[in-house]
Amino acid sequence: MIKLDYSNVLSERIGEEHGISLEDIESFQEQIPKIEEEINLRRDTDFYFMNMPFQNLERIKEVGKNIRENFEYFVVIGIGGSALGNQTLNESINGLGYNYKKYPKFFVLDNVDPEKFSSVLEQIDLKKTVFNIITKSGSTTETVANFLVILNMLKSYVGEDWKKYLIITTDPQRGFLRKFADQEGIISFDIPKNLGGRFSVLSNVGLLSAISSGIDVEELLEGSRYAYTVCSNSKILENPAYLIGVIHYIASTKKGKSISVMMSYSERLSLFVDWYRQLWAESLGKEGLGQTPVKAIGSIDQHSQIQLYIDGPKDKIVTFLKVESMERDFKIEGDVPAELEYLKGKSLKQILDALMEGTKTALIKASVPNLTISIEKLTPYSIGMLIYIYEMATGFSGLLYGINPFDQPAVEEGKNFVYGLMGREEFEEKLQEYNLLNKSSSILEV
Amino acid sequence: MIKLDYSNVLSERIGEEHGISLEDIESFQEQIPKIEEEINLRRDTDFYFMNMPFQNLERIKEVGKNIRENFEYFVVIGIGGSALGNQTLNESINGLGYNYKKYPKFFVLDNVDPEKFSSVLEQIDLKKTVFNIITKSGSTTETVANFLVILNMLKSYVGEDWKKYLIITTDPQRGFLRKFADQEGIISFDIPKNLGGRFSVLSNVGLLSAISSGIDVEELLEGSRYAYTVCSNSKILENPAYLIGVIHYIASTKKGKSISVMMSYSERLSLFVDWYRQLWAESLGKEGLGQTPVKAIGSIDQHSQIQLYIDGPKDKIVTFLKVESMERDFKIEGDVPAELEYLKGKSLKQILDALMEGTKTALIKASVPNLTISIEKLTPYSIGMLIYIYEMATGFSGLLYGINPFDQPAVEEGKNFVYGLMGREEFEEKLQEYNLLNKSSSILEV
Repeated sequence: MIKLDYSNVLSERIGEEHGISLEDIESFQEQIPKIEEEINLRRDTDFYFMNMPFQNLERIKEVGKNIRENFEYFVVIGIGGSALGNQTLNESINGLGYNYKKYPKFFVLDNVDPEKFSSVLEQIDLKKTVFNIITKSGSTTETVANFLVILNMLKSYVGEDWKKYLIITTDPQRGFLRKFADQEGIISFDIPKNLGGRFSVLSNVGLLSAISSGIDVEELLEGSRYAYTVCSNSKILENPAYLIGVIHYIASTKKGKSISVMMSYSERLSLFVDWYRQLWAESLGKEGLGQTPVKAIGSIDQHSQIQLYIDGPKDKIVTFLKVESMERDFKIEGDVPAELEYLKGKSLKQILDALMEGTKTALIKASVPNLTISIEKLTPYSIGMLIYIYEMATGFSGLLYGINPFDQPAVEEGKNFVYGLMGREEFEEKLQEYNLLNKSSSILEV
Repeated sequence: MIKLDYSNVLSERIGEEHGISLEDIESFQEQIPKIEEEINLRRDTDFYFMNMPFQNLERIKEVGKNIRENFEYFVVIGIGGSALGNQTLNESINGLGYNYKKYPKFFVLDNVDPEKFSSVLEQIDLKKTVFNIITKSGSTTETVANFLVILNMLKSYVGEDWKKYLIITTDPQRGFLRKFADQEGIISFDIPKNLGGRFSVLSNVGLLSAISSGIDVEELLEGSRYAYTVCSNSKILENPAYLIGVIHYIASTKKGKSISVMMSYSERLSLFVDWYRQLWAESLGKEGLGQTPVKAIGSIDQHSQIQLYIDGPKDKIVTFLKVESMERDFKIEGDVPAELEYLKGKSLKQILDALMEGTKTALIKASVPNLTISIEKLTPYSIGMLIYIYEMATGFSGLLYGINPFDQPAVEEGKNFVYGLMGREEFEEKLQEYNLLNKSSSILEV
């Protein structure tokens, strides 16, 4: 179902300097028992995502069914881990152009960019829209700001029925939105206390919008349960999460590969790559460690980034994503001029595959390590697998690095300056610090 | 109109280790006469983009007017430099959601991903669509493949009138498409012989779709002419292109900043960042040199990448893009619960600005060099300026690095393997080499 081809990271193929030997990989085998003990110990705390494949879906399916029957627009208000997963499921499983064909149309208000906000508003009808407000803490600035604007609009446009247009997904106890939902009697879902935002796509966070857009979430979890089993295999060479983790760890710490490019040769996985970017960056980017994840789309970025990947600094490891079988294809038929004879009878998918093979081979020749993940078909099952494998690869990698992959302490600093700037009580000192740090300016104005 | 704040790259603000001193910057002043001599020498060859601001637009405006009157859909068939610029102009100037409001609706077929191809086809009506096929060489695989599929469809659906639905933009003499256009009498535009794809947005490549979507291209060129003047200033501290170039060059070669993040706090500049990615990567990623450009969108990526930027490896310089005045805004009004009091009366734009300031200040505190480019308003004029400034910054940087910023030799290798794989004549050896390089496989299948 999913194939992980790691031939092109091996030193036998790309040489000693940039390649990794099988022995390098296998030398990590002795650390596995200790890591697995650690994972088991933290399974119900930090590694809580491991429990998601085994959820009961009865209630959420019922609410989802209700939404499909009563609304024409579904808008997620959330950001980061409360938005990327929802978008990933919709795009990868429902396919491109879902909103042109199906109901309820699906939108995400993540940014507070007012022009983005406005463009979403223009495409929906408030009276036919359900808003799913998602925030773990119940107080994420962007999310509550967007929510407060929408709330005010709802009260004007639909009057006292406004509560029927809201569903709140948040912490079971803490935060403003939990209190608000309970006081006002608004339908709500819990985000498990120990589940981090970027690991939450297979929880209530990602599942409600998925069900509402017609995705078979039972199959999605089935795929993740299968991946759970596969990722419980203690042998590195048989466990895709461990293999991805070990290869990237070696590349990063011993081969100078500070950048992890994920290049998808399927546009339906474009948002999956954004989801991966958050998972990889926020989990592992700590204490001076970690890799910078970079998104690329094939073949488009062959005409943009490949020059750099091949002939620029040798600081990259590339993961190609390939979908074996696509739902549509188009053949080059009819008259084909002589100089383009090589395209005759080929289909776009065949050409896309050849473009990926050509790029891979050019990378091999330039000694740029690369792996290929081939997915037979984009289905709820395969996406459930892929998500779980990457969640485990990330958690596992954190333990290899000796850091905590489940926190994001460096994000707090910026938030505190924002509170200071916006005049929030108890953050007056942060405003002073802001002013101090931004004292003089060197500006060129043209 | 455009402000470049470089306070936060200076060592007086972020310290000696990661910061740059004013003296560092000014020490490059002595190289300027030689570089300017070089630029002047190559102005009509490699630096041909410098002539674009002074074009005559009569014919293209007439054809564009015709399109606006006769078609409901405008589809660019092109990739890389023949697609990114078109998309940038449309999104940044026409704003988000253009296709929901205006005609002709604008689409790009760049990838050969058949599911993407299919999703565009579903949104257009062939009988009301004009296709602008854009390729410098006249033979780019993706472009001619997509074109041949469309051509065949057109012949079936609209019959002998098919030529009226095509406009070809390509080399004045060379290539299959030039010959095809001339033989069949199809409307065509030239891409100047010496103008490279990634520097072509202000030529016929980018302008026809811009005019057709109602953009005032005279104003666009006027902005680029103003930038031309500004970028002719020999003083580094007064020339935005030189200043951007020198700062990134020092950051890259002396401060270990191998990654150039461009983080836009306006979603309308999202595709501008993709355009920049190509410009920076393909021009400067050579001979082991150059920076990897990374795209980020604020505030979304605060919840995805900022943990890494602050606490991960210190290998980044960040450019923030800010738009001072937006076309829409929304205020938080009505009842605001006590714990969110700090948001009361604020607008989304004010919050967005505070989020950027908070992030910038957290980066200062973590000694991550960052610059801010503030654009008063997104207009044809300011976008014309911005594009020209970055084109010149890139060309100028290439001369600092001592490489040729106008070629992309490393891209050829992959293309040749593709020809080999697809059975093109005279590429049999490449197929053999492909087979040799991909001989054995290490695959994990789950």
